[in-house]
Amino acid sequence: MSEDYKFKGWVGRDKYAVKGNMEWKDYEPKIWTESDVDIKISHCGVCSTDVSFLRNGLGATIYPCVVGHEIIGRAVRVGKEVKHVKIGDRVGVGAQFKSCLKPDCAECSDGNENFCKGFVTTYSDKIEGEGNTYGGFADYSRAPGHFVIRIPDRLDSADAAPMLCAGITVYSPLKRNGCGPGKRVGIVGVGGLGHFGLLFAKALGASSITAISRTSTKKEDALKMGANHFIATGESKDWAAKNTGTLDLIVSTVSSPNMPLGDYLSLLATYGTFIQVGSPEDILPGFSAFTLMTKGAKLGGSVIGPPWEIEEMLKVAAEKGVKPWIQKRPMGDANQAIVDMEAGDARYRYVLVHES
Amino acid sequence: MSEDYKFKGWVGRDKYAVKGNMEWKDYEPKIWTESDVDIKISHCGVCSTDVSFLRNGLGATIYPCVVGHEIIGRAVRVGKEVKHVKIGDRVGVGAQFKSCLKPDCAECSDGNENFCKGFVTTYSDKIEGEGNTYGGFADYSRAPGHFVIRIPDRLDSADAAPMLCAGITVYSPLKRNGCGPGKRVGIVGVGGLGHFGLLFAKALGASSITAISRTSTKKEDALKMGANHFIATGESKDWAAKNTGTLDLIVSTVSSPNMPLGDYLSLLATYGTFIQVGSPEDILPGFSAFTLMTKGAKLGGSVIGPPWEIEEMLKVAAEKGVKPWIQKRPMGDANQAIVDMEAGDARYRYVLVHES
Repeated sequence: MSEDYKFKGWVGRDKYAVKGNMEWKDYEPKIWTESDVDIKISHCGVCSTDVSFLRNGLGATIYPCVVGHEIIGRAVRVGKEVKHVKIGDRVGVGAQFKSCLKPDCAECSDGNENFCKGFVTTYSDKIEGEGNTYGGFADYSRAPGHFVIRIPDRLDSADAAPMLCAGITVYSPLKRNGCGPGKRVGIVGVGGLGHFGLLFAKALGASSITAISRTSTKKEDALKMGANHFIATGESKDWAAKNTGTLDLIVSTVSSPNMPLGDYLSLLATYGTFIQVGSPEDILPGFSAFTLMTKGAKLGGSVIGPPWEIEEMLKVAAEKGVKPWIQKRPMGDANQAIVDMEAGDARYRYVLVHES
Repeated sequence: MSEDYKFKGWVGRDKYAVKGNMEWKDYEPKIWTESDVDIKISHCGVCSTDVSFLRNGLGATIYPCVVGHEIIGRAVRVGKEVKHVKIGDRVGVGAQFKSCLKPDCAECSDGNENFCKGFVTTYSDKIEGEGNTYGGFADYSRAPGHFVIRIPDRLDSADAAPMLCAGITVYSPLKRNGCGPGKRVGIVGVGGLGHFGLLFAKALGASSITAISRTSTKKEDALKMGANHFIATGESKDWAAKNTGTLDLIVSTVSSPNMPLGDYLSLLATYGTFIQVGSPEDILPGFSAFTLMTKGAKLGGSVIGPPWEIEEMLKVAAEKGVKPWIQKRPMGDANQAIVDMEAGDARYRYVLVHES
């Protein structure tokens, strides 16, 4: 396959990009190395992190910025050092582009690349000596091979794309905290992440699944996704007391610093675990240590997952027929998709699709 | 053995009892049932909870109150329903006197009696239809047999006594969170609980043990107890930054609501766990969710342990020669022992001893 392609994508130039002002234009990808893979992008999911980065919400955006870290496409160039991918393979890249991969890195050598101190994000980051990183709202992606994942044949590209960030963000804590038969699982928030929480809790065989949301607007949807129970925290005064001690594992996908954390924790059963994956920009609300102590309970956090676990998740998704609720949008409509995403209109994930 | 003994002990009548005003006098124990054991007390450890209850620190004290929940003695009367104890056995009772023990109680049937909703404390509590509970600053204790533990021959009574509350409080979270070879363990606070944390972390084979205290006053002691490293948080500005990511498991025995929780959490390595066993009366200090998320770390809590685990701990203590640092005091000096305990003078646990 020829290598005469150029890198073009939806470039944000400043924080106003989030208002529908990304521009389709050329940009300079990181320099090629023999450990890289070039991907001709067919699909890219739209994540709330994309919105946050376009408006420089964390103060960490490097402009010009091309967002998108739920990338699917075909390998069109494969570095000599990359053994698991060949040209033409359908592959994907999630939110992590690189880690140090040094033998003396505890995280990398234990298969916890997602916790490596050398974590490079898929866009708006730098690789020393190679240039800036650019995401998947684009024609092509140049990605370090270690983080390029092969997509199982049985999975549709549009379904697989949002699994690469949203999916693994909830799959990893569910799996690592024993989601399966005998476990009563709660998912806080029914959005892009939360809907995957319900789908994967079901795929992993949880004994019961409780969706927790402020209102009952999404109740019907949540039940269709696999929830057996639904708690609308804004519509009942005594929701916490009524449901105290009923859940073994809760994954919280919400990110408001005003969330009723103490009440969420009270839902845990003895030796229960609460995992925060939504990213509150402020400190967590205070709670009493006794809430955890009197149940032997734990509060933890998690971010995405390493490549081997993304592969495992895709295999589970293919075997169990996990079907995310997505809305396909043409890659040409990326600006409007970002505006709609910020407005909270996604039900439950937008996936940009290249028409070519 | 005759049953003509009377129940006499150090009775607190109001909150001023904590100032050295307990009175040695008769009290009415709970009524006898055939699931009980009467114990002629030889030793009783002095716990900070005793101080707290004598002054009604939690607002939950039932006066008259006899404190003490690290009780060792000989069984002098054994109910027909009690199978594991016979008259003359050396036995002990810790901080828990009773749980519901119903077959439909998830906690009791899973061997987690310490998390049963029907938890009855060893003193200053009530058993429905049987009367109030009284602790071990006394001649005799009448205790429900399920919570009466046989003491291994190789353990000295004075050493075993404080293990029944202080020991199990740290042993349980250490054991359940993988303390052993390959684990780098931290203990926050070098007091009654913390010194057991160091001793049991060593007995369980932790690869390294770090004692964390405000000052270096107890450094030499901590090193003798098994610590390899010592952090004095009040004597170095950058202790947290210097030691970030170096511990797999931390057990926190301190209880100040002003503790630098975020800094403690920063000491955790990837997938590390922090367990709070000290009891802050206020809410925990706030911290950023990212502190946990970026390491897949967890913050949990724990209270004592169930009878089977207390037995396991005593067996480990006997096999590994765990030798607590105690100061024996005559039972007659209980008032002064309470005053000295509150003043923080214990190094590291007082044990009241009956001279008879």
